[in-house]
Amino acid sequence: MTVAISKRGDVEPFHAMDILAEANRLKALGLPVVSMAVGQPSDPAPRDVREAAAQALALGRIGYTDALGLRSLRETISGHYADHYGLEVPPERIAVTTGSSAAFNLAFLAMFDPGDRVAIAAPGYPAYRNIMAALGLDVVEIELDGAPYLHAEHLREAHAATPVKGVLFASPANPTGAAIPAEELRELIETAGELGISVISDEIYHRLSYSAPDVSALSFGADVTVINSFSKYYCMTGWRIGWMVLPEKLVRPVERIAQSLYISAPELSQIAAIKAFGATAELEEVKARYAWNRELLQLRLPELGFVFAAPMDGAFYAFCDVTKLTNDSMAFAKRMLAEAQVAATPGRDFDPLAGHRYMRFSYAGSHADMVTAIDRIEGWLSKR
Amino acid sequence: MTVAISKRGDVEPFHAMDILAEANRLKALGLPVVSMAVGQPSDPAPRDVREAAAQALALGRIGYTDALGLRSLRETISGHYADHYGLEVPPERIAVTTGSSAAFNLAFLAMFDPGDRVAIAAPGYPAYRNIMAALGLDVVEIELDGAPYLHAEHLREAHAATPVKGVLFASPANPTGAAIPAEELRELIETAGELGISVISDEIYHRLSYSAPDVSALSFGADVTVINSFSKYYCMTGWRIGWMVLPEKLVRPVERIAQSLYISAPELSQIAAIKAFGATAELEEVKARYAWNRELLQLRLPELGFVFAAPMDGAFYAFCDVTKLTNDSMAFAKRMLAEAQVAATPGRDFDPLAGHRYMRFSYAGSHADMVTAIDRIEGWLSKR
Repeated sequence: MTVAISKRGDVEPFHAMDILAEANRLKALGLPVVSMAVGQPSDPAPRDVREAAAQALALGRIGYTDALGLRSLRETISGHYADHYGLEVPPERIAVTTGSSAAFNLAFLAMFDPGDRVAIAAPGYPAYRNIMAALGLDVVEIELDGAPYLHAEHLREAHAATPVKGVLFASPANPTGAAIPAEELRELIETAGELGISVISDEIYHRLSYSAPDVSALSFGADVTVINSFSKYYCMTGWRIGWMVLPEKLVRPVERIAQSLYISAPELSQIAAIKAFGATAELEEVKARYAWNRELLQLRLPELGFVFAAPMDGAFYAFCDVTKLTNDSMAFAKRMLAEAQVAATPGRDFDPLAGHRYMRFSYAGSHADMVTAIDRIEGWLSKR
Repeated sequence: MTVAISKRGDVEPFHAMDILAEANRLKALGLPVVSMAVGQPSDPAPRDVREAAAQALALGRIGYTDALGLRSLRETISGHYADHYGLEVPPERIAVTTGSSAAFNLAFLAMFDPGDRVAIAAPGYPAYRNIMAALGLDVVEIELDGAPYLHAEHLREAHAATPVKGVLFASPANPTGAAIPAEELRELIETAGELGISVISDEIYHRLSYSAPDVSALSFGADVTVINSFSKYYCMTGWRIGWMVLPEKLVRPVERIAQSLYISAPELSQIAAIKAFGATAELEEVKARYAWNRELLQLRLPELGFVFAAPMDGAFYAFCDVTKLTNDSMAFAKRMLAEAQVAATPGRDFDPLAGHRYMRFSYAGSHADMVTAIDRIEGWLSKR
């Protein structure tokens, strides 16, 4: 019997997920693994969010919703843009998605055809590159080469070499945590506009800045595609619920594709997410813990030989140059997991070219876990 | 500012979802709409399923899982193959997915490259065609021309005309409800094997047969890709949870793509779904109601001028020839919704060529709703 296997399916694994699978396997064996590998809060979703879900469960059927999501959730998200950014975004331009994962897939499918060139920064979130590759896009990796974030000038240069059709960036970014300052963001978006390049702005780490207020790309143009999610600040990773803000022209194409590819986002998660914006007091406590973890890592990682490769402006990541310790961060990460029972992500996920020199530590876990992890890494390194 | 809009995003809308959106809009206005448009049970998920979800909610964090799903759920699904089919399917070959929607997307991406020719039956589930189109596959529609299901001979003919790389079929099928008898299924799969054609078997309507026991394509070869879901028999549509059984060679490609495209299926739904196979008593009651609805429609639809286009072997659909009533089932469906407040799906969704002659009625709703719907359609038709 024949089994067809495609060429496009030959994407890179998401090594953080492989490390997570291995960490879960070790945990199941009873080993006390501490994970700094995956970007997920250790806290549950806010109380009101879980309560709304419990109520909906008790009331009855959890069914399909409109492909673009429950009207009430779209209205609530619209309200968030008014409250948090002072921006007017009509609910009609908001699409509720099955996490930001679905949002990226939908944006790429609705905006780009196979062979289209789309620029991203390296290092960057690996799923960008992997989804684009699976969908036949030509991924243009702009190596930041030590710059903390993508500048207008990077884009200009890449476009001059060979024109690109789109650009995707994140601020604060994964894996670096670096945020693009407001004026630089404006320049980047205006430059894209001038060059005829479509913009996708990944704002999933908004509300997790430690230095400056959030600025949405929407402040500099209604025709950018913004992607966001309830996973990070709102502690709802496993609920798989996110959203996009779409230029008007993209609403119907995204709706049509979503109808067939997703039907709808999980209804329970949609109902629950409506309560997320009201849980600020609880979530700011969680953020305060990240800030505490961040202070610990800022102090301790350099002492252990990990050199910060970018400022820790936001998100919950430390991205470190590990060349003082290893030439191969992948092997290093595997050994650290096996021997010190601390999981962190090798840089290869984020940068195919220079990734072997870097590692990402997520500090979204509990403070006690961070302390334990640092202690274990210290002990392990001293014995190597 | 430029907004890129792709050509591949120009897929057909899923008209059933558009009808659902319109029905929801009318309901929100206070109109007593009865929906026979969408294939979703009116019952909530089984009690134990909802209880497991409530407990998980109370316990704490809902997080990412391994990309292929919780080990415990994969083991439970493996047990289902032993119990229900007498088949041995190791948990390692089972991938938990975000509904069958994700399973189709993953199967197509992992198996086929752009330009590959993949055969489906017309009429058939519209998302097959739409996802394939979005992913650049060359969809080969085999018109059944009155045959209730796909035969080996159909496949042989299509392949002789221009070779196909894959074939996808469903039994029981959407929209017809027709089931492929065991011996015909064997012949179809063996013929595909002989011709070097990869097989995807959509078994989402298993356990909803009214005539013969379920036979999985896995009975005739371990190298078929089987797609199933907790949405239909298990009443878990809005939970977005399904699974695939993969040939060994496809496990790792699917895992890699799923890591980037989905991260994981919703954890709460995974935890809850573990309880689904234990809820047979409750679910058989639901199925008995479908059987009751089916009897009603079998009697009444022909009296109203709707002619069955296929035997109602399984699922919860009646697929009818409406040429006695209209030349344009799309306009007819819209008017029926606006004037009789009964939503049903125009055939266009299922068959771009001949769909204007057909309509699909879902009888997954309550019996009272079915009675009301039939009464209203009768009254409406008598006044036209």
